[in-house]
Amino acid sequence: MAQGEILAQLSEILEQRKAEDPDSSYVASLYNKGLDAILKKVGEEATETVMAAKDVAHGGDVDKLVYEVADLWFHTMVLLAQQNATADDVLKELARRFGVSGIDEKAARK
Amino acid sequence: MAQGEILAQLSEILEQRKAEDPDSSYVASLYNKGLDAILKKVGEEATETVMAAKDVAHGGDVDKLVYEVADLWFHTMVLLAQQNATADDVLKELARRFGVSGIDEKAARK
Amino acid sequence: MAQGEILAQLSEILEQRKAEDPDSSYVASLYNKGLDAILKKVGEEATETVMAAKDVAHGGDVDKLVYEVADLWFHTMVLLAQQNATADDVLKELARRFGVSGIDEKAARK
Amino acid sequence: MAQGEILAQLSEILEQRKAEDPDSSYVASLYNKGLDAILKKVGEEATETVMAAKDVAHGGDVDKLVYEVADLWFHTMVLLAQQNATADDVLKELARRFGVSGIDEKAARK
Repeated sequence: MAQGEILAQLSEILEQRKAEDPDSSYVASLYNKGLDAILKKVGEEATETVMAAKDVAHGGDVDKLVYEVADLWFHTMVLLAQQNATADDVLKELARRFGVSGIDEKAARK
Repeated sequence: MAQGEILAQLSEILEQRKAEDPDSSYVASLYNKGLDAILKKVGEEATETVMAAKDVAHGGDVDKLVYEVADLWFHTMVLLAQQNATADDVLKELARRFGVSGIDEKAARK
Repeated sequence: MAQGEILAQLSEILEQRKAEDPDSSYVASLYNKGLDAILKKVGEEATETVMAAKDVAHGGDVDKLVYEVADLWFHTMVLLAQQNATADDVLKELARRFGVSGIDEKAARK
Repeated sequence: MAQGEILAQLSEILEQRKAEDPDSSYVASLYNKGLDAILKKVGEEATETVMAAKDVAHGGDVDKLVYEVADLWFHTMVLLAQQNATADDVLKELARRFGVSGIDEKAARK
């Protein structure tokens, strides 16, 4: 499995979007609008995550929650990119905090 | 680099915490308090992410933003775990959306 | 001073908007979109309030904060109206909590 | 009815709390913790408002929503007070925006 590469590839895409025309993509237009526009989206997606979770708790489909968390993570990655940081920085912070290495023990032993 | 494994390992840890005593860890106590307590934390961490980003924009250190995004991602992972979903589901949704495979092209060619 | 009448008059306007064509006003269109659309706006306006407060703390004008809090209160009033409650219910709850009567003591003595 | 006086009286109470010992009340302790602590509460109460609204939509009691909106308005008033603004400024902004005078027409004619 190489799910971890997804965030790295997405970070690269977000970096490339910085050089593109504001009209060429959603992300390029967000960069052009600036930090406050990106933060409004982060707040909105966090709200939609909470709403989706309540719907799931009341019998809705968990896919909706996964979808909204993906939206939230995506917009935090746009925010990080705008501030010249990446998902990799977040993963390192999580690894440091929880004492996980990011390297599968068995793989490391080979 | 195997950053991707970090989220998988963290998902495993969050799953294990479900069987543990509420007093034994922060995550176990959050599960015990239930969905609303987890959602309050998601809302609070989203707010702290916005606050940190504004501080960075006004000259603060970007590390604070990375730290708050890590907090936000972590609590959304607790939320997903509580609803029997994982970070892997989120990564698959992001991969589907952005047409990234999660598999490095060169590795795939080998 | 009759500032208190403002919320009562605004509540009346919000009630009237319920019977109007969705295309006739912003509020009528919000009602038509339904609860989730209103909640997204509440989340967005709360985020903008936090952003404005950080800007004020970094030297910005306090008027921006007042403006965003007005936006937030307004959208919570739309939410209350959609659920058949009013600002008056909120004021009564605040009065109950803080032991204030809403009646100026001196005025009452007259 | 003098519901409008409630916000004015509450604003006065919030102003008085500024001079009090941080340990003497919840509001005094919030001021002492500073802006970020107040903003975290605003974000948390906005989240709880969204959660309560979803519960009402799924059959819960509307009183819970009124209670959470009261919490949200209260914490935005603490925020305004900390920045030397008041609920009255918010009411004036709402009056300006919606063309309501805050003065009952009949009363004005007298």
